[in-house]
Amino acid sequence: MTARVRPLFRWCCLCCLVSLWAAAAAADQEPDADDRITQVSVINALMLGRYDGTTTLSDLLAVGDFGLGTLDRLDGELIVLEGVAYQVRATGAVIEVDPETTSPFAVVTRFGADGELACPEGASLEAIDRFLDDKILERNNFVAIRIEAELATAVLRSVAAQERPYRPLAEVAKSQSVWRHERMRGTLVGIRSPQWTEGIAVPGYHWHFLSADRRVGGHLLECTVRTGTIRYDICGDWTVKLDQSRGFNAPDLGTDLRDEVEGVETRRGVPK
Amino acid sequence: MTARVRPLFRWCCLCCLVSLWAAAAAADQEPDADDRITQVSVINALMLGRYDGTTTLSDLLAVGDFGLGTLDRLDGELIVLEGVAYQVRATGAVIEVDPETTSPFAVVTRFGADGELACPEGASLEAIDRFLDDKILERNNFVAIRIEAELATAVLRSVAAQERPYRPLAEVAKSQSVWRHERMRGTLVGIRSPQWTEGIAVPGYHWHFLSADRRVGGHLLECTVRTGTIRYDICGDWTVKLDQSRGFNAPDLGTDLRDEVEGVETRRGVPK
Repeated sequence: MTARVRPLFRWCCLCCLVSLWAAAAAADQEPDADDRITQVSVINALMLGRYDGTTTLSDLLAVGDFGLGTLDRLDGELIVLEGVAYQVRATGAVIEVDPETTSPFAVVTRFGADGELACPEGASLEAIDRFLDDKILERNNFVAIRIEAELATAVLRSVAAQERPYRPLAEVAKSQSVWRHERMRGTLVGIRSPQWTEGIAVPGYHWHFLSADRRVGGHLLECTVRTGTIRYDICGDWTVKLDQSRGFNAPDLGTDLRDEVEGVETRRGVPK
Repeated sequence: MTARVRPLFRWCCLCCLVSLWAAAAAADQEPDADDRITQVSVINALMLGRYDGTTTLSDLLAVGDFGLGTLDRLDGELIVLEGVAYQVRATGAVIEVDPETTSPFAVVTRFGADGELACPEGASLEAIDRFLDDKILERNNFVAIRIEAELATAVLRSVAAQERPYRPLAEVAKSQSVWRHERMRGTLVGIRSPQWTEGIAVPGYHWHFLSADRRVGGHLLECTVRTGTIRYDICGDWTVKLDQSRGFNAPDLGTDLRDEVEGVETRRGVPK
């Protein structure tokens, strides 16, 4: 290459690199996506037994690195933490989820902390809920909550994959697997939804847990925290993914299932 | 430039162009955005008098070219059609909205027809609602509906900009401006929301109208269609933009305002 042409060549290369970087950056991130919470389906559809997955984990991980939910055929509890999706099966086994697996109900966001709080020592899950009510006043926004904690006790549950014809969730939950653990380090993955999302989201607090060694997890029914650090992310945009199938459009999703949702998703304590 | 270098230069230019095109294309369009319906705030916040705009028209037009709503301080009715935002003031004047104007409540989508229907001749607005109930069975999805029509009669309304302290919408609507027109060609801009969106969206049908000459418009209270063509777009993703201000988080948005919403947004006929 002649000396006269070399600067021109360098300039072209630079342009190419800048353009490619811009393309990659734009494709990688939706506008505002960091402040969006994305939900698959509505809770009443799940309550009524709509357990067939509709959105792949790969699509969910594209819009969130933190969250919770369940998997195709209600096959266990889903925990999304640091961009990795974990399934806690009814046997208690924790496995990484294949990106092609689908979910019938899940809530995820790209977690970026808006604030940090020390968790009150010795607090029960109920006490944590009340503590957060007092500290995070954005009651008409969604809040993603991550607590790194040492737990004195934890009561966890999961459910087994279902077969058609599907029974309603309140009935399936009667045969859930429940475990009690002591002295455990890990992460509480929580979503707080506004009270007015009744029938669509789970109003109030919904908690899942994953141990630091990724060996124990599930829907958190009860716990006692020894020490913990709370980080929370207030989400501005709420996206609900609705499927257009006949099955989704058939049921009356306006049915009042408040008691059932509370019983399955937010009621505290070990079921009798 | 030497003959040896010319092909290299051309190759570089081509790479630059392709990369720039990819960057522009990626930045221009969110994934799935064509199937998304985006809503500013929740209807109960508007009902309770939250009239200060939170989202610019420019941001709304980036995610939708079709829709309806209102403007900052409740200054008239908003109609978004073919990517242009129109404001119908309480005086009846129709003007194009400045992109920096904000909206406290609006619903928009990128309209792409999923189906087409002939409008029943001589139908009232009530009859159109029932006709669409029978034809579009996706009752748990949002549907954007565009009707190009010759109207025999149309009853339209708009409201005047409000001043603080804001009164609730049901009260403000009592002093709305109402016009009756005959023989008018134009577009009915409609959004159908599922019944279970109560308190968040406007369940059922919400209609605005804009004449073909862009001189007459408003919230449509009643009409008789001579002839018309209906096109509709079923929307899969529903995004609700929630603002994080103290003002938005203060009120109890779970208040039951069904009667008030129906009275202001979906009740048919001319108010007494």
